[in-house]
Amino acid sequence: MEQAKRTVFFISDGTGITAEMMGKSLLTQFEGVELQRILTPFVKDQARAHNAADEINLAAERDGHPPIVFSTLVNSDLEDIIKASEGVVFNFFSSFLKPLEDAIGVASSHSVGKSHSGSTSDQYLNRIDAVNYALENDDGHSIKNYDEAEIILVGVSRSGKTPSSLYLALQFGIKAANYPITEEDMEERVLPKILQPYKHKLFGLTIDAERLSAIRNARRANSRYSSITRCEDEVRNVEAMLRKASIPYIDTTDASVEEISTQILIKTGLKRHN
Amino acid sequence: MEQAKRTVFFISDGTGITAEMMGKSLLTQFEGVELQRILTPFVKDQARAHNAADEINLAAERDGHPPIVFSTLVNSDLEDIIKASEGVVFNFFSSFLKPLEDAIGVASSHSVGKSHSGSTSDQYLNRIDAVNYALENDDGHSIKNYDEAEIILVGVSRSGKTPSSLYLALQFGIKAANYPITEEDMEERVLPKILQPYKHKLFGLTIDAERLSAIRNARRANSRYSSITRCEDEVRNVEAMLRKASIPYIDTTDASVEEISTQILIKTGLKRHN
Repeated sequence: MEQAKRTVFFISDGTGITAEMMGKSLLTQFEGVELQRILTPFVKDQARAHNAADEINLAAERDGHPPIVFSTLVNSDLEDIIKASEGVVFNFFSSFLKPLEDAIGVASSHSVGKSHSGSTSDQYLNRIDAVNYALENDDGHSIKNYDEAEIILVGVSRSGKTPSSLYLALQFGIKAANYPITEEDMEERVLPKILQPYKHKLFGLTIDAERLSAIRNARRANSRYSSITRCEDEVRNVEAMLRKASIPYIDTTDASVEEISTQILIKTGLKRHN
Repeated sequence: MEQAKRTVFFISDGTGITAEMMGKSLLTQFEGVELQRILTPFVKDQARAHNAADEINLAAERDGHPPIVFSTLVNSDLEDIIKASEGVVFNFFSSFLKPLEDAIGVASSHSVGKSHSGSTSDQYLNRIDAVNYALENDDGHSIKNYDEAEIILVGVSRSGKTPSSLYLALQFGIKAANYPITEEDMEERVLPKILQPYKHKLFGLTIDAERLSAIRNARRANSRYSSITRCEDEVRNVEAMLRKASIPYIDTTDASVEEISTQILIKTGLKRHN
């Protein structure tokens, strides 16, 4: 089949993050299609909707193909303006709201911008608090607030603790500290004293030694820190320490921060705050 | 209309983050409906699909209503197992893939787990690099890597610089540093010397003084730092400094990090790396 070059628009009355996530995961199913992606957020009035429609029509002319449009517009007047363009429009509100109303047995409010609760909701403030907490309690920098931690990630340097802590905070509002197990800690193969009172909050991240060595090499090439021997020793010692102390742990080698964080929720039963 | 109590499932072969985002934004349109949300990620085989279907059926019995199920399963055998449950299933792959194939003129690959490119793709490594960059260059801690910055956020303390830098990094792979404008800097109403060579990368965040005072009070109650007088002075001085230096800025008072970050992309034309 001939390769198609297509323009894809993500149109929203808010940030467009939901429209884009929806569109991107659908488009991963189409390999070999060259796509130019255009994010068109904050389409809140008719003028902006007409601008977006004009852009879609320009792309249609340029490509010789109708653009693909993923829309999360709720306002039907604005949606109609987009639909009147040359684009092929996929709007998951208009596709799903009616059957969802039938299933729930309640009429939907058709209100705009609902999915973003703004910056003053308790839920949002809690997320920002959690981000600040993760930063202040990153990498063992401060250990005086561990009473407040919902989880404390432990593992060797560069096993994924910091990005996972931040993701847990930013997405789920969970207060996650993290503490690096160092070579000195490993020699005794017992949990560092400082962590012992918080054993029930500890969760380990481990990683394949070769992958760890590659990651460390990207930061400090050809150092002892990044050598495969040292990486193997550290991983083996930390895993032994975690097993001995019955601390649950997962392997982060092939996992993204999203996957690591979701796995942590499943294994710990930790509840998210959003 | 009678209030309904319903259970909502988010089912995915991956983390379920897309299924949940889709479901959550649809459900914001239904006010006054009491919902219990259950995330069921990593449904990768028939055994797990049957477990999920059993859980759905249990919830149906308990609620006396069929549960709502948002699914992003791509594998049709697994999806069929879920569909045979008592739940009302909304699967945006099965709803949109066929019309999307028609629009693009290419068959979809129907492959599983595609939306998560894993932890070794360049795009993913770039995101993690950007997170590390944001951390190392947070709050003016280090200014020696500003050549590498794609953007440097400036503003008063607690105007939203840190969470926005992290969000730009984690979601978009953008290297964002941030620098707090201090009282000493403000007295002269000129950009701190250290920032002057990077003027083209600077972007200001400002905030309503009362809101700033409330945020600061939550951290240091009744301090000079959080007093309304000082907050008003700081905000006025920083805005004057930014205007004088022709640095673009936005008001973060009512904006979430998602909204702030999207606004920054629009105003600067900065390209995301994903």
